[in-house]
Amino acid sequence: MNEGVEWALHSCLNLAWIGPGRAVTAARLAAYHELPAAYLNKQLQALVRAGILISASGPKGGFRLARDLDRITLMDVVTALEGPEEAFRCTEIRQRGPGAGPTGGRAPECAIAGAMGRADLAWRRELAAQTLDAVRERAERQAPDAPDRIRRWFADVT
Amino acid sequence: MNEGVEWALHSCLNLAWIGPGRAVTAARLAAYHELPAAYLNKQLQALVRAGILISASGPKGGFRLARDLDRITLMDVVTALEGPEEAFRCTEIRQRGPGAGPTGGRAPECAIAGAMGRADLAWRRELAAQTLDAVRERAERQAPDAPDRIRRWFADVT
Repeated sequence: MNEGVEWALHSCLNLAWIGPGRAVTAARLAAYHELPAAYLNKQLQALVRAGILISASGPKGGFRLARDLDRITLMDVVTALEGPEEAFRCTEIRQRGPGAGPTGGRAPECAIAGAMGRADLAWRRELAAQTLDAVRERAERQAPDAPDRIRRWFADVT
Repeated sequence: MNEGVEWALHSCLNLAWIGPGRAVTAARLAAYHELPAAYLNKQLQALVRAGILISASGPKGGFRLARDLDRITLMDVVTALEGPEEAFRCTEIRQRGPGAGPTGGRAPECAIAGAMGRADLAWRRELAAQTLDAVRERAERQAPDAPDRIRRWFADVT
């Protein structure tokens, strides 16, 4: 999985802590974790296309959350950045070579693809069951001072 | 995920259908699904290192299963080929830049890494719960003639 997923998730939490009224540039969000700004910008643009963030141009432009964290799941973010493809791609090798079954009809799903697909589904279910708001709550329990620290830093550096 | 996972899983099932007494070369296993033999050989060698296959050299050499399919899980094969790493790698960006918490102590696990890790665990649990024997049973229900066809082809071409 692309490391941009980690960056995007932290950036979404940071935007929530900064507050809904403020748009923040990719450069500022990147500086907070010493990330490459151009590359983070690409991830954030993908979140915009997925309707997770809103971007505005202009002097006060930047990114902000398009909806509350309790309406964004880990699955939303992962799909926005990694696409909807399963990790296991069945290329139907069983239909190639001398082992190929009779063609023409619709073959039942390959048992291997089905089994791998069930694992993928379990992964997706778990990602879809976890909202960013639940992640934020746990993060605040672990580091109660984080929201204030983040708000102050982004308020100072404008 | 590497396409070699699909190849390796099909090859394990084929070896089971061919029967425990026969060693089969990577070239033969590859030919059955029109796969690149050298690349399949790499995957099969990884299964040997993981104790899933046994390889023997010599004129009657080749690969065979090291244990019954009911003692090989999808997780075994995926780990053998993809390594034990999680799909989501936490690089601890929260510890970098002005957002870094107080250093020195052991920071509690990042809430984001924890949430992503739960999804990974759900995936691994499902992979570990499925044996190749259960996959073989489903494959035989879908294509009852497959085992015979496979046995005949590998018996003919030696």
